[in-house]
Amino acid sequence: MLSTMQDVPLTVSRILRHGSTIHATSQVITWTGEGAPQRRTFAEVGERAGQLAHALRDELGVQGDQRVATLMWNNAVHLEAYLAIPSMGAVLHTLNLRLPADQLAFIVNHAADRVVIVDGSLLPLLAPLLSALGTVEHVVVNGPGDRSVLDGCRPRVHDYEELIAGRPSDYAWPEIDEREAAALCYTSGTTGDPKGVAYSHRSIYLHSMQSNSGESFGATGADTVLPVVPMFHVNAWGLPHAAFMAGTSLLMPDRFLQPAPLAEMIESERPTLAAAVPTIWQGLLAELDAKPRDVSSLRNVVIGGSACPPSLMRDFEERHGITVVHAWGMTETSPLGSIAHPPAGADEEAAWGYRITQGRFPASVEARLAGPGGDFLPWDGQSAGELEVRGPWIAGAYYGGGDGEPFRPEDKFSPDGWLRTGDVGTISPDGYLTLTDRAKDVIKSGGEWISSVELENALMGHPEVAEAAVVAVPDEKWGERPLATVVLKEGATADLEALKTFLGERIARWQLPERWSLIESVPKTSVGKFDKKVLRKQYAEGQLDVSEV
Amino acid sequence: MLSTMQDVPLTVSRILRHGSTIHATSQVITWTGEGAPQRRTFAEVGERAGQLAHALRDELGVQGDQRVATLMWNNAVHLEAYLAIPSMGAVLHTLNLRLPADQLAFIVNHAADRVVIVDGSLLPLLAPLLSALGTVEHVVVNGPGDRSVLDGCRPRVHDYEELIAGRPSDYAWPEIDEREAAALCYTSGTTGDPKGVAYSHRSIYLHSMQSNSGESFGATGADTVLPVVPMFHVNAWGLPHAAFMAGTSLLMPDRFLQPAPLAEMIESERPTLAAAVPTIWQGLLAELDAKPRDVSSLRNVVIGGSACPPSLMRDFEERHGITVVHAWGMTETSPLGSIAHPPAGADEEAAWGYRITQGRFPASVEARLAGPGGDFLPWDGQSAGELEVRGPWIAGAYYGGGDGEPFRPEDKFSPDGWLRTGDVGTISPDGYLTLTDRAKDVIKSGGEWISSVELENALMGHPEVAEAAVVAVPDEKWGERPLATVVLKEGATADLEALKTFLGERIARWQLPERWSLIESVPKTSVGKFDKKVLRKQYAEGQLDVSEV
Repeated sequence: MLSTMQDVPLTVSRILRHGSTIHATSQVITWTGEGAPQRRTFAEVGERAGQLAHALRDELGVQGDQRVATLMWNNAVHLEAYLAIPSMGAVLHTLNLRLPADQLAFIVNHAADRVVIVDGSLLPLLAPLLSALGTVEHVVVNGPGDRSVLDGCRPRVHDYEELIAGRPSDYAWPEIDEREAAALCYTSGTTGDPKGVAYSHRSIYLHSMQSNSGESFGATGADTVLPVVPMFHVNAWGLPHAAFMAGTSLLMPDRFLQPAPLAEMIESERPTLAAAVPTIWQGLLAELDAKPRDVSSLRNVVIGGSACPPSLMRDFEERHGITVVHAWGMTETSPLGSIAHPPAGADEEAAWGYRITQGRFPASVEARLAGPGGDFLPWDGQSAGELEVRGPWIAGAYYGGGDGEPFRPEDKFSPDGWLRTGDVGTISPDGYLTLTDRAKDVIKSGGEWISSVELENALMGHPEVAEAAVVAVPDEKWGERPLATVVLKEGATADLEALKTFLGERIARWQLPERWSLIESVPKTSVGKFDKKVLRKQYAEGQLDVSEV
Repeated sequence: MLSTMQDVPLTVSRILRHGSTIHATSQVITWTGEGAPQRRTFAEVGERAGQLAHALRDELGVQGDQRVATLMWNNAVHLEAYLAIPSMGAVLHTLNLRLPADQLAFIVNHAADRVVIVDGSLLPLLAPLLSALGTVEHVVVNGPGDRSVLDGCRPRVHDYEELIAGRPSDYAWPEIDEREAAALCYTSGTTGDPKGVAYSHRSIYLHSMQSNSGESFGATGADTVLPVVPMFHVNAWGLPHAAFMAGTSLLMPDRFLQPAPLAEMIESERPTLAAAVPTIWQGLLAELDAKPRDVSSLRNVVIGGSACPPSLMRDFEERHGITVVHAWGMTETSPLGSIAHPPAGADEEAAWGYRITQGRFPASVEARLAGPGGDFLPWDGQSAGELEVRGPWIAGAYYGGGDGEPFRPEDKFSPDGWLRTGDVGTISPDGYLTLTDRAKDVIKSGGEWISSVELENALMGHPEVAEAAVVAVPDEKWGERPLATVVLKEGATADLEALKTFLGERIARWQLPERWSLIESVPKTSVGKFDKKVLRKQYAEGQLDVSEV
């Protein structure tokens, strides 16, 4: 029996219309680094989004679902692009300016972007690539920057303000099927080519609603949110759309992501909410120690992107009265996968136990743990498996590029369509997720999984250990076994026997490594994470001095 | 370009699964009137919902989208029915126990209900109807009550607890198209037959998300909500679904809706949120004056159903520290149409000016004002028109009954599918709705609308006027003109000339009535509203003593 409700699609244009009328006076404040920040009302952003859509269609000939890319910081013009491009039926492609040049060129060509909107400050990054970008016909430059670097390039070059000036601010946004793509974001995988996730109007709309729920961030028209997380990184965790929906004012840091300007903009613009990765917060904390500033406006800051050290959370709370909320997600999950609010009635110490987990899943995200044998594991807080998730804002495939079909690599999607996150962890009986490893770093020993991170944390608890990294190495009997590599502190006297005894008192006997190696330092990736690929390679090639202990 | 997101439907079974696992320990507390209230966890409610679904399918043979009715108060078993019936693919039909017997019989037959679940306390209401209910095959009785009144009735009679006992608590909830009907609720129109609104899984899901947003009620797992508004009245304003989604505990008043037990349950169970119509709050306020109790747990109470006197809102705030939030909606709007949170930055007096309006529309509700000439009016806070709304939880038709097609009366739905609410009002430039009249009570005078309520309020401001009702009467020149009927206080000395002068100083000249009548009392409907139908009839039949002043 069909319902009698109206069939109204959930689209970005609905968010745009709502924010720019009902919340007309909410503000988008863009930091400029010197002098007063730039201020625009939601009404003005809505009008300029209409002008941009006219410019893209009438002047640059953007049609249908063509892709329009942005290579931009977090600022008001980027928000205009966020709202205008999907609302007119085209697809917004946010370019990650931290990608290596060859990967940037790859994703622009793969998406067949017709237009690139670029901040003037990023022209030195774009200009050298342009000759490799076969589909790009127009470059639109926003704000100051040395445009001479574009001299002689093939695409036509436009100034953003000149392009939109004088055009009508109202645009007859088409009614779009909510399952159509609205925005495209590529994951920067460490192996293989970047893979594109095409968010739908529906997924963005539902994700925004969830973001605004009391159980998630709960931002309202009385809040101002500071998204430090870049708009090219999973849509700044969905905050720009969510803010425009709820009338939450936005404080945009543009390119001023260093601790000092962040502290300054917080003190002067008094945001109530903020979101960033742990390293940003760590830097801000040090900055505030060195030069105290009033950051008391902040009620909640959301941390995600990688696990947050509990000490950092406590420091913010105890020294600055700011509640840090831990959340988990990835490009493929829009990104809100889980968020760590403690359950009702938990006392303070119990609450901390919950808050350092990855948290609980919102109603629209279903989760399960796939065990080593492919079976699904109980939520007992003990059984560790690979997290798989399902929901209306979770990817079910990757973008095929051009007219290509979407594709579903087996290691990323289960046969019944769930996303394989590549994260390994446990879920407690009351639904809290604790992640311990990336699936590729887990040691698969005789049908059981050993957490490399658990062993590392236990080892690093030894007073003479500076760093420890545990990786899987092949083993004839067990398939894989852990190899423990340890960096001792200067002047340390412990030997491997002593370390093994220390570890043996802290973990299950069968997990205890037989292979040990003292090393000078743990190899690291460009973002400072342990590079276990290198360690495994060094072991395979016999470059490590390994003892059987 | 299609997105790469998973295609996952928004269904009631998703709310059920989520609430009973992630929020397993949240509680449903049902007041029993004597002794301890009944307490069930969300996990238990989920298990019992599974058992109920098995009983309905395996024992009573409910299939496909058949209708299962409830004639019940707000209690845990009613919630089990709310969750189980739509989740199994059937349609929940909530029966309004305040309807006259002939209308109750009409809607049960129109919906072709196969099963009625009834509270034992309501058997005296159901029993006399049963012979007229042709499609009902089973009656399921919940809780104590004199079951002998069912002796000899045609449908088979079951005890709820016996029916579900021993059945499996897990049920393989089918994957349902989110646009299928989940629940059916009839409007109790004052004219014509009741008309059914069939909510979809999608509309219930989206409405729940909106309800939980910070801009609406913002309930979380840390809250307990007391829905005084009945579950047969627009799904208790959607609160049961929203609560199960967010893990908000529910305090269910069952049939104890009198001020004294309400005050008692608030004091002992300490809910943080509550929702009811103004008369309930008025009664509670008087009760608290007579016998003070601790109601300080309440953070927000939501008032809707009819306009709330500002004095009531101020009394709650000033005397009890409780914020009263004004909201507007109707059966056809699920019901969340608008909610009156003041805008950011408003000082206290300005905030009150916003809080007494009907409020702002959430992102999923679009609104427009249709003027007397059929044109759409500006949001200038002045132009009054009929409110029309559009959105994914707004009705676009009425249920046709049995296999009948949905129908769309012209006075309820515009040609382009918007709902005509029948409410007349203005919208301010910042999006706040102020309702003044029902469309049928507006005076259409020479292509302009005159608000009867505005004239009444102005007249009732006269110190000697007890009541005033203004109705439209036919006029040769203007089409319609206002007739002012006035009830003077005892001992009043004002005459009609004086009243007209008084009114003339407060409204625009062209709105001033020429026809006046002093009456003994204004005729009222059964719920105490002015019955303007009767006044118009009295005028037409020459029963009023009318002066041209």
